[in-house]
Amino acid sequence: MSIVKSKIRTIPDYPKPGILFRDITSLLIDPEAFRLTIAMFVERYQNQGIQKVVAIDARGFIAGAALAFQLGVGFVPVRKKGKLPGKTISEAYALEYGVDHVEIHIDAIEEGEKVVIMDDLIATGGTLEASIKLVQSLKGIIHECATIIDLPDLGGAVRIKEKYGINVYSICEFEGH
Amino acid sequence: MSIVKSKIRTIPDYPKPGILFRDITSLLIDPEAFRLTIAMFVERYQNQGIQKVVAIDARGFIAGAALAFQLGVGFVPVRKKGKLPGKTISEAYALEYGVDHVEIHIDAIEEGEKVVIMDDLIATGGTLEASIKLVQSLKGIIHECATIIDLPDLGGAVRIKEKYGINVYSICEFEGH
Repeated sequence: MSIVKSKIRTIPDYPKPGILFRDITSLLIDPEAFRLTIAMFVERYQNQGIQKVVAIDARGFIAGAALAFQLGVGFVPVRKKGKLPGKTISEAYALEYGVDHVEIHIDAIEEGEKVVIMDDLIATGGTLEASIKLVQSLKGIIHECATIIDLPDLGGAVRIKEKYGINVYSICEFEGH
Repeated sequence: MSIVKSKIRTIPDYPKPGILFRDITSLLIDPEAFRLTIAMFVERYQNQGIQKVVAIDARGFIAGAALAFQLGVGFVPVRKKGKLPGKTISEAYALEYGVDHVEIHIDAIEEGEKVVIMDDLIATGGTLEASIKLVQSLKGIIHECATIIDLPDLGGAVRIKEKYGINVYSICEFEGH
């Protein structure tokens, strides 16, 4: 098992019975494993012409901010509805029951800018797909999406690749959901 | 005016009429100003024996993660109630109407560890004070609190210094609230 994967702890029955929650806080607290995680993203995205890192509220901010700093590029937050103070555009995504929305500032990306979209984990990919739509609405070019964890049994990464032609890179995978 | 301060935009009447919201997204999006912001924190906290960076949900994660990575230390999130999956302790803080809570994992800090607590902004200091109590409950040693912005007219930094003897360092100040 990789060092990064070995540091991610599993919390059973959170947020509800039957769910195995993959908790990155045990990774973030470990200096070597945290550094290695960020270094893997830096190695992958340096010298690729990336102009901005788009990161998803809230856990996506952690790796996203460290990556943006290391690459020397701007950081753009995608946030839950009502959290961004400027003019925004909004995209809906499905929850188990109902819908929620994510937003981006309309001036956050310029036409043709090359970006990476980051989150901590991809499951069904709903939030990531909504974020892709936001970036594409602003005419940004998505180089790749990146997460620390993929749950491949939920098919999010495959669906995004098929639907948008955008690759989702993840450092490690966990079976189940 | 400093470069960092000049990049923070003010959004009037957000989140409600009469409030001047100091928006760091315009700073984060600027590669040079974002790098300078993090570099100022790194310069201040390197070689100080800091062992962990504690960062407050959600905007505090941004500078906190970049700083933790640069210092080569662990990152610990303080989150809104119900967002951390492991065993937590909780502290209340006052809202304009009512109270809310922040939480930390009980195994996030070991006794005697030296930490910096980071957020994007200090106003009245309620969230920061609750975070101080969480770290002190786990017997961590708080070297300093750090924010990008201080609103000194609201007195949060002075109150925390008087009540806890802990300094709050900020890169820039804005008058009003």
